[in-house]
Amino acid sequence: MKTVVSFSGGMDSATLLWELTNGGRTNDVLAVSFTYGSKHNEHELRAAWTFAYRLGVRHREIDLSGVMAGFKSDLLKSGGVIPEGHYEAESMERTVVPARNIIFASVLAGIAWSEGAEKVALAVHAGDHAIYPDCRPEFVKDMINALWSGTDGRVSLHAPYLNLTKAQILKRGLGLNVPYELTRTCYKDQPVACGKCGSCQERLEAFVFNNAVDPLEYQSRDLMPKESK
Amino acid sequence: MKTVVSFSGGMDSATLLWELTNGGRTNDVLAVSFTYGSKHNEHELRAAWTFAYRLGVRHREIDLSGVMAGFKSDLLKSGGVIPEGHYEAESMERTVVPARNIIFASVLAGIAWSEGAEKVALAVHAGDHAIYPDCRPEFVKDMINALWSGTDGRVSLHAPYLNLTKAQILKRGLGLNVPYELTRTCYKDQPVACGKCGSCQERLEAFVFNNAVDPLEYQSRDLMPKESK
Repeated sequence: MKTVVSFSGGMDSATLLWELTNGGRTNDVLAVSFTYGSKHNEHELRAAWTFAYRLGVRHREIDLSGVMAGFKSDLLKSGGVIPEGHYEAESMERTVVPARNIIFASVLAGIAWSEGAEKVALAVHAGDHAIYPDCRPEFVKDMINALWSGTDGRVSLHAPYLNLTKAQILKRGLGLNVPYELTRTCYKDQPVACGKCGSCQERLEAFVFNNAVDPLEYQSRDLMPKESK
Repeated sequence: MKTVVSFSGGMDSATLLWELTNGGRTNDVLAVSFTYGSKHNEHELRAAWTFAYRLGVRHREIDLSGVMAGFKSDLLKSGGVIPEGHYEAESMERTVVPARNIIFASVLAGIAWSEGAEKVALAVHAGDHAIYPDCRPEFVKDMINALWSGTDGRVSLHAPYLNLTKAQILKRGLGLNVPYELTRTCYKDQPVACGKCGSCQERLEAFVFNNAVDPLEYQSRDLMPKESK
């Protein structure tokens, strides 16, 4: 096995998983989905299992819900309501989960070391930079160093979408025929995507930007006007 | 609250916890003990709870045993027998738990951020450097950077014993009357310390170096001769 990739079941990590496996069956990649007490966990996990099964890739679920039970975030079941509006809006900062990617990357490193894999991969992207500090280039650079020194050079961290927008990631995925109807992006605890949370809005925008139609079902597909974002 | 400290119930982290709290009751420090499926977990946890209770400090247990269930290490219940001999011997490398401190530091950062604490602390020391890559100065430097950037400057990592030997840590603790009879160091799954595993040997050596007697009960207190180390 070569790469352990964090796979939420969302659009970005599904694209990355598809690229890493060349869209086909392989034993070189292990997809890891984390449960951590988020409101949408059940729904995104179902998407993750379905997508990984369709792809024929190894898939493991790691339960961090106890570990992160005391963490403060509106994304978690213990937090307040999911705000609606633009992904980069100040209100969305309440959905930041403290140190989430730091923890994910660390656990992936331990799995990779144990499995003899040399790489761990995260699908963090430019759209995440505004509100998530552990998705920014400076963090990724520091974490590459920490995983490398902390595993004595056994594990390297890769974030190939670090400087791509969500629209650019989608463009790659559309070119590869990634089955986006099997993915899940919405932050809310409901089977059908709301279309109104920051995460849905960002996804819908990416499809519009690519002149494509998102194959997912939505309660609403309206993009919020710039001024109210 | 100001500091979240990793507290195994062993000699080093007990000394650090004692120093951080000035040996007394405080709300400024949260001690966090991790369970992760090690053979000696039950025994060191009992020590940790007892020590923290005696001190009157907040104490939280975080269960990583599911997360690290697939990790490869003889320290874990899933691994082979604990080797006997010197702590820095090659055989002890089998007790390294992949990415353990990377994961611990990351989880502490999430707790600290959620609790409004500015610092996380680890009692890694010079004796750990030989076999544990995630206890070495270069890792600590990299992880300081990663936690800082990944939390947007909210959390700083401290490792005040990084360049001290276990004997030097003990010297500080003896001067402060740390109740070492409440701590637990042995790697084996037995109530009484074996005295023969690398961890016991290193502790016994530290007491001899300080012309002190370890208040713990041991099955054997014999130091292994240098040539067989």
